Amino acid sequence: MVSPEAEAVPTSALIRLVEARWFRTLVIVVIVINAIVLGLLTSQTVRAAGGGLVGRGLVIVDMAALSFFIGEIGIKLVAYRQRFFRDPWNWFDLVVVIIALVPASDSLKVLRALRVLRVLRLVAAIPAMRLVVSGLFRALPGMGSAALLLLLIHYVFAVIGVQLYGGTVYGGYGDTGYDYFADLGRALYTLFQIMTLESWSHGIVRPIMDVHPNSWIFFVLFVVISAFAALNLFIGILVNAMDSAKDEQESHMSAEEVADPAQRAILDELRSIRAEVRDLRAQLDERQDQAPAARKAPSRTGNETENTGKAVKAGNAAKSRKTAKKNSSA
Amino acid sequence: MVSPEAEAVPTSALIRLVEARWFRTLVIVVIVINAIVLGLLTSQTVRAAGGGLVGRGLVIVDMAALSFFIGEIGIKLVAYRQRFFRDPWNWFDLVVVIIALVPASDSLKVLRALRVLRVLRLVAAIPAMRLVVSGLFRALPGMGSAALLLLLIHYVFAVIGVQLYGGTVYGGYGDTGYDYFADLGRALYTLFQIMTLESWSHGIVRPIMDVHPNSWIFFVLFVVISAFAALNLFIGILVNAMDSAKDEQESHMSAEEVADPAQRAILDELRSIRAEVRDLRAQLDERQDQAPAARKAPSRTGNETENTGKAVKAGNAAKSRKTAKKNSSA
Amino acid sequence: MVSPEAEAVPTSALIRLVEARWFRTLVIVVIVINAIVLGLLTSQTVRAAGGGLVGRGLVIVDMAALSFFIGEIGIKLVAYRQRFFRDPWNWFDLVVVIIALVPASDSLKVLRALRVLRVLRLVAAIPAMRLVVSGLFRALPGMGSAALLLLLIHYVFAVIGVQLYGGTVYGGYGDTGYDYFADLGRALYTLFQIMTLESWSHGIVRPIMDVHPNSWIFFVLFVVISAFAALNLFIGILVNAMDSAKDEQESHMSAEEVADPAQRAILDELRSIRAEVRDLRAQLDERQDQAPAARKAPSRTGNETENTGKAVKAGNAAKSRKTAKKNSSA
Amino acid sequence: MVSPEAEAVPTSALIRLVEARWFRTLVIVVIVINAIVLGLLTSQTVRAAGGGLVGRGLVIVDMAALSFFIGEIGIKLVAYRQRFFRDPWNWFDLVVVIIALVPASDSLKVLRALRVLRVLRLVAAIPAMRLVVSGLFRALPGMGSAALLLLLIHYVFAVIGVQLYGGTVYGGYGDTGYDYFADLGRALYTLFQIMTLESWSHGIVRPIMDVHPNSWIFFVLFVVISAFAALNLFIGILVNAMDSAKDEQESHMSAEEVADPAQRAILDELRSIRAEVRDLRAQLDERQDQAPAARKAPSRTGNETENTGKAVKAGNAAKSRKTAKKNSSA
Repeated sequence: MVSPEAEAVPTSALIRLVEARWFRTLVIVVIVINAIVLGLLTSQTVRAAGGGLVGRGLVIVDMAALSFFIGEIGIKLVAYRQRFFRDPWNWFDLVVVIIALVPASDSLKVLRALRVLRVLRLVAAIPAMRLVVSGLFRALPGMGSAALLLLLIHYVFAVIGVQLYGGTVYGGYGDTGYDYFADLGRALYTLFQIMTLESWSHGIVRPIMDVHPNSWIFFVLFVVISAFAALNLFIGILVNAMDSAKDEQESHMSAEEVADPAQRAILDELRSIRAEVRDLRAQLDERQDQAPAARKAPSRTGNETENTGKAVKAGNAAKSRKTAKKNSSA
Repeated sequence: MVSPEAEAVPTSALIRLVEARWFRTLVIVVIVINAIVLGLLTSQTVRAAGGGLVGRGLVIVDMAALSFFIGEIGIKLVAYRQRFFRDPWNWFDLVVVIIALVPASDSLKVLRALRVLRVLRLVAAIPAMRLVVSGLFRALPGMGSAALLLLLIHYVFAVIGVQLYGGTVYGGYGDTGYDYFADLGRALYTLFQIMTLESWSHGIVRPIMDVHPNSWIFFVLFVVISAFAALNLFIGILVNAMDSAKDEQESHMSAEEVADPAQRAILDELRSIRAEVRDLRAQLDERQDQAPAARKAPSRTGNETENTGKAVKAGNAAKSRKTAKKNSSA
Repeated sequence: MVSPEAEAVPTSALIRLVEARWFRTLVIVVIVINAIVLGLLTSQTVRAAGGGLVGRGLVIVDMAALSFFIGEIGIKLVAYRQRFFRDPWNWFDLVVVIIALVPASDSLKVLRALRVLRVLRLVAAIPAMRLVVSGLFRALPGMGSAALLLLLIHYVFAVIGVQLYGGTVYGGYGDTGYDYFADLGRALYTLFQIMTLESWSHGIVRPIMDVHPNSWIFFVLFVVISAFAALNLFIGILVNAMDSAKDEQESHMSAEEVADPAQRAILDELRSIRAEVRDLRAQLDERQDQAPAARKAPSRTGNETENTGKAVKAGNAAKSRKTAKKNSSA
Repeated sequence: MVSPEAEAVPTSALIRLVEARWFRTLVIVVIVINAIVLGLLTSQTVRAAGGGLVGRGLVIVDMAALSFFIGEIGIKLVAYRQRFFRDPWNWFDLVVVIIALVPASDSLKVLRALRVLRVLRLVAAIPAMRLVVSGLFRALPGMGSAALLLLLIHYVFAVIGVQLYGGTVYGGYGDTGYDYFADLGRALYTLFQIMTLESWSHGIVRPIMDVHPNSWIFFVLFVVISAFAALNLFIGILVNAMDSAKDEQESHMSAEEVADPAQRAILDELRSIRAEVRDLRAQLDERQDQAPAARKAPSRTGNETENTGKAVKAGNAAKSRKTAKKNSSA
């Protein structure tokens, strides 16, 4: 019980540090500097400038930025402990830093290139961009079925394409021609290109039609179907986005602000009805104050009062109407 | 009357089997395996691997899957009988299996290629995808007029194109040039390509403009008009999709969930008015219980009671107002 | 006064004929046949078939169709007189027929080609397509400003383009290169092509960048700005279309159908409030029937009755509240 | 205090002049003439026509138009003083005129070309177009985050691209091949081209895949991600536009016009409830006029009247119900 208490102060102090406005701004500044440095380092001329001095300087700045990121993540880890791993953005930060630490041998040239992914930390660091990216990711599950359908269409057309048009060299690309449907991989890539409509006719389909005159059926069908499925995917995202935009907007506004003129007119009408009903009741109450007085005068027998008392006890408002009738007709 | 009863048990047992969760999952698994096998079979290398053993193995798996599908459809046929043919998805399953059974001679290479359509059974087997595809098909009739218009535009431009630009060989494709408007079929294909904007200018229109300098009028007009018509088609689908998305969403939600803040405010207002009116009535009822007692005291003549009785009998609430007035002025 | 009466019968008979269902169907059939004939006539092979007999036959059918159209328009002219010219679709029909009657010399090859515009009469003949096209035309004025803006952007960029990049021959098209910005006309066409994104970079901008390394600023700016303006144009049409789709839909539906669940809940609530208020009134009326009787008993002086009578005459509901108060406190 | 008063008259007269309808129309006419002149001046043939006379004439017209614009801005400056600089459109006018006044040496050929920007003054001069452009600019801040994300994606992919694919000459463009990722600038341009889908596969990716077979992962990923981000940008603008379109429309319409049928039904229902409640009150008032008279008859003791008086004073409508009950049971 002692140690948590002893640590409580530094931990919360660390959290305060990490969540401080100036610290967040500092992180953004370091990311931007790092981004520029990584950009400059891609240029042979810049690296070689000043007899390679500029290049070495930039590498040092890059390493300093990386050290800063490691330190930042370390502090966050100490401050939040397990909670650190609950935020997917923290996972992203961690992976990005680990990639930078892997010794980049020549065979892992790709990993060295991926160091620039660090720049994407900017997305996590700027709330407005975080919102946009969260929105994009939230849109993903909604488009799952449509995306799967698009994949399926590609797969089916690719398999058919390989069987019908594979094994032949066509024109349209390269000096000696090209087999667009040599295997399933190539066929999928070719179909993806056709879906984006890039050089689909002059580059691919016309040359294939020179060999298979009826192949236009296959390709026009694919263009139409894939365009239709992609459109569906797009509409799904759009409808989703508009819904959530509307929801968000409404949750930040009072009823009065959301209301369109028609709804405002309805609300005004309702308020005046309520006022009218309230007046009505006030009026009745007023009379009730007078009425009993008026009625009390002729009541000379206890009998009557008893009768009234009974009726009041019978008292269920809905039922008592009939009781009252009986009384009066008695 | 005996035979249906005797068959009732096995038929319903078959329906239970066919509609069981595990059976549906099994079907999906078999379809996926079959899809992978058909994909692998497109590769010469895979087929020839292990001295052709792998290829033969895959063919056997494919045949097993096909047998399974035949069996599945057989069971469904027995279980549902005529009802089997009412579901269009069942027709699709049937056609796909029949295609696989047609002996694929070399001249029917296309039919053999179409065997992979079996993979599309995945759409029928997964409810979420079935929903997406149903949505696509439901969108079709709504876009009929716009699609017909697009076709008409293509036809008119194609006929004009053949008459104005047919019979000449232009550059932009092939080594010896190409006649983009040789006949109606080619013209329609060329115009479809132009509508997708693929190589329309560098590949087709600029070479034609080298011969017919004013042809840009024809093509720019076609690009603008077809884009406009296609846009209309797209908007039609989009509006449809958004409407049905809204409907579906609302049908799954209670009124409270659908309501925007303004509507919730209106509902709150209404509920408080109702409460107020109810109170008012309760109050009146209460007084009615007291009032007759108060009033009964002075009523000593049967005459009065008769009078009241009459009024009650006259009793239509709306009319009685005037009656009451007459009474009181009597 | 005599002649109009004498003509009244045949005129209205002609209108009945022209608006009869079978006549409209006949017109559609003739248009479709004419469309097919005009399509077949584009084929040299078809025209030459049977020693040219088929061709001559088709021309005769075409002329018969044309005669039918002339007759149809004649009847309509007689039937509707001046009203004929109020419908823009009639103007379209008239122009299309006149084009067909112009003697098509070789120099007017274009006019002969335009004869196929007759096929577009199908749009006027089928109500559903008429609706689509009307919708397109109705969208036009709304997009006027955005279209003018797009034109202005093209013009400004074209003038700048001619001054900066004109007079030089670039690669990317043709064997000896091409001057994409030779004059204002070419520049406008080039920019239109760039806006459609067809071969804009590989075909036009990269070759220009080989000469003017900074020209990418001009072209990227144009791509972004024109895409943005076109997007605006598109959004304008879309918003318009959705609005009118909504309006149309609502005008064909009852309130109950349009209402979303929240609105239905509000309506239900309102109806129960109304029922409650009605009950309340009925209840009051009922009491009023009893009350006067009860009250009449003690009323022995004509004085009172008079008093009541006066109050009733004073009678303005809103004012009488105060009168009543005064009375009771008297 | 004297000078402002002395100037007051001419200043307001100038404002009247500048804001007069005929003056605005004159400005538009001059802009259009200037636009045509600047267009004609781009043509060598036109400039040389009539031995260069036409060219010189056009230049004079251009200068006259420019003088007119300088005069116009001068008047506006005198009329509005500091307020002149508050309107961004005035800034635009000023900059455009200043560009025209900079002596256009050969090294500043660009500035001379930019003189045509004067034509864009048309946007500022025509209110409808001003609205469209204002709309476009208002959409800009809302798409800030999405645009920044798109930029970031380009930057990250460009840096990776230079490291992975830079320094090699690929086919697809030029006679000797082209290094699409030579430096960061080229890489960014190449990626922008790929995002527009222009020649992305046949022109860029297929040639790169010939050297780096796995590079399709990089490029397909970029196509998908950038399309997705661009789509998001587009949706943001669209949602914004539809919202503001809706707002604008509603602000110009009365509640009755905005209301859909369901809302109109609700309003009707409300009005009839209000009428019913009003009737109810009128009815009660009527009775109240009669009732006091009826009640006054038996009231012979001052005691009662006091009692009533007290109750009225107690008078809080909500509370008095209980008081009334007590009275009647007393």
